[in-house]
Amino acid sequence: MRGVASGTKRRNRDLSRRLGALAMAASLFGALPALALDGIVEKKVFEMPSYTTVGGGTIKNVRVGWESYGKLNEAKDNAILVTHFFSGSSHAAGRYKAEDPAPGYWDSIIGPGKPLDTDKYFIISSDTLVNLSPKDPNVVTTGPASINPDTGKPYGMSFPVVTIQDFVNVQKALLDSLGIKSLQAVMGGSMGSLQAFEWGADHPEMVKRVIAVIGGPEADPFLIGWLNLWAAPIRLDPNWNNGDYYGKAEPVAGLTEALKLVTLQARHWKWADAAFGRKWAEDGKDPRAAMGNQYAIEAWLDKAAAGRAAVSDANHLLYLVKANQTFVTGNGPSLEDGLAKIKAPVLLIPSADDLVFPPDRNMRPLKDRLEKQGNRVDYTEAITSTQGHLDGIANIAKAGDAITQFLAK
Amino acid sequence: MRGVASGTKRRNRDLSRRLGALAMAASLFGALPALALDGIVEKKVFEMPSYTTVGGGTIKNVRVGWESYGKLNEAKDNAILVTHFFSGSSHAAGRYKAEDPAPGYWDSIIGPGKPLDTDKYFIISSDTLVNLSPKDPNVVTTGPASINPDTGKPYGMSFPVVTIQDFVNVQKALLDSLGIKSLQAVMGGSMGSLQAFEWGADHPEMVKRVIAVIGGPEADPFLIGWLNLWAAPIRLDPNWNNGDYYGKAEPVAGLTEALKLVTLQARHWKWADAAFGRKWAEDGKDPRAAMGNQYAIEAWLDKAAAGRAAVSDANHLLYLVKANQTFVTGNGPSLEDGLAKIKAPVLLIPSADDLVFPPDRNMRPLKDRLEKQGNRVDYTEAITSTQGHLDGIANIAKAGDAITQFLAK
Repeated sequence: MRGVASGTKRRNRDLSRRLGALAMAASLFGALPALALDGIVEKKVFEMPSYTTVGGGTIKNVRVGWESYGKLNEAKDNAILVTHFFSGSSHAAGRYKAEDPAPGYWDSIIGPGKPLDTDKYFIISSDTLVNLSPKDPNVVTTGPASINPDTGKPYGMSFPVVTIQDFVNVQKALLDSLGIKSLQAVMGGSMGSLQAFEWGADHPEMVKRVIAVIGGPEADPFLIGWLNLWAAPIRLDPNWNNGDYYGKAEPVAGLTEALKLVTLQARHWKWADAAFGRKWAEDGKDPRAAMGNQYAIEAWLDKAAAGRAAVSDANHLLYLVKANQTFVTGNGPSLEDGLAKIKAPVLLIPSADDLVFPPDRNMRPLKDRLEKQGNRVDYTEAITSTQGHLDGIANIAKAGDAITQFLAK
Repeated sequence: MRGVASGTKRRNRDLSRRLGALAMAASLFGALPALALDGIVEKKVFEMPSYTTVGGGTIKNVRVGWESYGKLNEAKDNAILVTHFFSGSSHAAGRYKAEDPAPGYWDSIIGPGKPLDTDKYFIISSDTLVNLSPKDPNVVTTGPASINPDTGKPYGMSFPVVTIQDFVNVQKALLDSLGIKSLQAVMGGSMGSLQAFEWGADHPEMVKRVIAVIGGPEADPFLIGWLNLWAAPIRLDPNWNNGDYYGKAEPVAGLTEALKLVTLQARHWKWADAAFGRKWAEDGKDPRAAMGNQYAIEAWLDKAAAGRAAVSDANHLLYLVKANQTFVTGNGPSLEDGLAKIKAPVLLIPSADDLVFPPDRNMRPLKDRLEKQGNRVDYTEAITSTQGHLDGIANIAKAGDAITQFLAK
């Protein structure tokens, strides 16, 4: 079990090496810290010959991708684990290539001098099991689309059910492989916050701080219902074929509709007003004139979701839905039991307009609950802007001071 | 064009006649008002040989069902029109048969001595064009599932696009046929509120008051996106077959998933918490143990939506989605223009927790807007409870005093 560079990323790695040499030269002039992240990041792969799930299933040849930013110190006690959201990956910061159109999703807070300061911390992030995007060349994951070594064919729906706790267990094995025995913090947004809570509950001796963004301590029943609806279009697509579609026509239409739901629910009417208004999709094609004529927001949803579907896998989405639905901090029996296991101080960062994890149902009562059981809790809704749930990604920098202060305590 | 009893309701009508005679006898003892509504209501049918849509399409042999409660006075100036919601019908109050399990949806405010007082007002409600539930024996509507007299076959997707303004135009023809030239109020919830606003804008000389519940003056772009998603499962179902499924296997699975979306978005996490919590669908079937094991809320959604799908038509849902998406008060060109046409006082009744028409986007700014243009506006959020959008139906009685006072002004 050790980190090995993925074959598909060889070119990036070579480029990274060349830039590494350049950075080393530049460091003579004091420029290294900036280059260390504003330069190039590399996807590495962690492998486990076999993993037994919380539910008792066996997954052989587990492979998950991971990235890191900054340097692990000799004591190996400066690590911060970043856990990713439903449609995210381990690409939390930096660029693979200088010409990448955008950096990792939380680049605004990860880097030299930023709240997750790479001059100080070793930031590490890994792709989860059943990551949504196995077709993304920068994602390495194990799930229904992976080959089952016992059959030589993709698992499909024979892949065992996995939970958020399984994601955490694999991350724990990754950290073990690096000799990391203590974490300055675990920080995650949305599904990443579920993993952060689970880390806090499962490894209280190891986790010094929990930072949870746009999430909650359990999947509330309304969210369980919504997650069911996110999955539904896939099952309706005849190409889904009970999950047996590998090497055949894939359920792209169903997957696209599923991702339209995910995309829209993660946003807000304020965003829709600002981005589209009631504009038509095409000039001269009045939506009142024909059933097929659309509004701009409809055409955008189709296009955005089709782009995401191209790198996603339908069965992986179903497994992610299940992992989120079944989540209760500490994996039960009750939320109270699970929360009681968290000993670390907690920073909660909801978006006031979140329609996936509404703060009235999630982080506002959670703040009181954690304080009542004795945890130190910091709390800010500073990220709230116009994008609802997505403010947790797009506007995380607005919570930068809160994060910096929380890490300094 | 006159109201005629629908063939399928002959038995009810006969029962109604018998009860009518009983009521007449009872009136000798002063008991008529109570029996007038707590007794039996009758579905009537309004017919138009031909209707030309706002978009220029022609629909021959238009038939819509209607009901009334109370008595039209001689001056014909005591009428209140009640316009129905997306999945509703003209059955706003009363029962068809004494043994009906539930009365019409707003029975709590319609009846003798109630806010819509049938001792005083003639309450009338009609099924819209493209009503969701053409298979409900108590709904009479004209839409894609109707026979096109020119072909002898169902219209399917050749049915012309219809708008909220078309719904209003057909209602206007119904009222004309009854000699009603003035309305004490038009009142509707959700899609019914869109019709109420449209009535106020199209017939300011006729509409004395507008009462809008859980709605808004236009489909905002976020709602346009959601409506697209409501429709999507139908198009994914291979049985939909571009709307050509009559007499064949129907797209029941797609329609059911569509109705699950409608059902859930019309509710709220407070409702889900109270009704289900994280309970499993079946004892002994831990959702963590198998992909097919569900939570209670999932099983409930499946069952509730399947029940609704049994009386609904998939193409009708697509046409309703279009009618709602295209709605702007006054049918454009701008919302300002449309609202300026409303001269009547307006009573706005949002639910604070509404996820379909969030009051921050809809009724709260609308209140200011209408007041600024000189309308008298009454406003109450008294219906807010735990059911989100649905509070506008389930808890309308909490706005009873506001309605009574508004009608008295």
